[in-house]
Amino acid sequence: MTYELHYWPMIQGRGEFVRLALEEAGADYVDVAREDDDAGGIGPMLDRLSDPANGRPPFAPPFLRDGDLVIGQSAAILLHLGPRLGLAGTSEADRIWTHQLQLTIADAVDEVHDTHHPLGVDLYYADQKPEALRRALGFRQTRMPKFLEYFERVLVANGGERLVGADRTYADLSLFQLVDGLHYAFPRATAAALQAAPHVERLHDAVARRPRIAAYLASARRVPFNEDGIFRRYPELDG
Amino acid sequence: MTYELHYWPMIQGRGEFVRLALEEAGADYVDVAREDDDAGGIGPMLDRLSDPANGRPPFAPPFLRDGDLVIGQSAAILLHLGPRLGLAGTSEADRIWTHQLQLTIADAVDEVHDTHHPLGVDLYYADQKPEALRRALGFRQTRMPKFLEYFERVLVANGGERLVGADRTYADLSLFQLVDGLHYAFPRATAAALQAAPHVERLHDAVARRPRIAAYLASARRVPFNEDGIFRRYPELDG
Repeated sequence: MTYELHYWPMIQGRGEFVRLALEEAGADYVDVAREDDDAGGIGPMLDRLSDPANGRPPFAPPFLRDGDLVIGQSAAILLHLGPRLGLAGTSEADRIWTHQLQLTIADAVDEVHDTHHPLGVDLYYADQKPEALRRALGFRQTRMPKFLEYFERVLVANGGERLVGADRTYADLSLFQLVDGLHYAFPRATAAALQAAPHVERLHDAVARRPRIAAYLASARRVPFNEDGIFRRYPELDG
Repeated sequence: MTYELHYWPMIQGRGEFVRLALEEAGADYVDVAREDDDAGGIGPMLDRLSDPANGRPPFAPPFLRDGDLVIGQSAAILLHLGPRLGLAGTSEADRIWTHQLQLTIADAVDEVHDTHHPLGVDLYYADQKPEALRRALGFRQTRMPKFLEYFERVLVANGGERLVGADRTYADLSLFQLVDGLHYAFPRATAAALQAAPHVERLHDAVARRPRIAAYLASARRVPFNEDGIFRRYPELDG
């Protein structure tokens, strides 16, 4: 069975959390909107999103097709894929804990997004730069350290190398992605904040070295970070 | 087994989605921080949150204790409670769809919060009023209609009365709460937007009439909406 991932082809965005899980597991999948055929591109993706034949439509990309099932919301997609890909621990308690961590990572990602779009998604960054400066200040000084120190505490309580139990989970991959994005968007502030979260930094580096992840990151399948995505390098927002 | 809910005692907030599910099911639960004893109040709640003996700590309230399990993130709590309370449909496909809807409702709730706190949670509303006016404008004109029309589409595709399958789910209760909060915070804009989402309004009214929900809403257990919560009535933000 080939999984079909549908997401904006030009950004990592929220789809990247799903891509990383599929890549780590060596799953058979197609990143449909990035295909160079009639199925690819944004138009066909949006057509699928609004397909009236789907009575359970996703609100927005990303969405995953697994046979007859179409699932939106990146955290829900990972909830579905986790046990199937062997990336959600071994017990029901592990699965719900992995998911709880994912939702907290998603909250952090939302706050990163709002650093450059505090007044909303319908305005350009150029139309909200003074406000972005103020929002980014609070993010760098308070929120980013709070999130990173939380994950540090969780890592240390679990032995230091993984967030959940004895094996890699999608929460580890997602924390890698959060930290990778923070390094891109806020290189100075992130380096400073990671001083208080050394296990988080080591987890980031360890995930990047995993063979399938390293191969993925070096491939054309990994969309580079850019200023259309969630993690944007606007130096003025890094203080 | 008594469920223990731990949440800020003075607001509905994100804990309300959990309270509604527990109330609808007639579940045996204690809203611990609202108890008038040594276990109640904010201090003991925050002590539990930072308890070093819990190796799987929630990031923030709400959290639920179910025996040995402590779960944070309102959507994860509902994921756990849904099947136990009979509020998540009948199949695995129903459960993941119910959860996907919950996550989309949570996204809408986050956007409501940001209408009065566009520059972040570390500043008072009074310190970000001009920015709140701009953010609220986009929310009223674009985002609220988009969310409500999405749920209208989902309702109509499922026969008009429920979001998932043939029975009530926690997604219905949460959509009630979203609409109830929108009516409180943006009475004019919400009435206008619901013109295009009549089934959403009818679902809201039908949930409010369910015997256990009606009894709950009329009780002292329901914290009134107020200007410390997510849904705040600042008339200037209603246009």
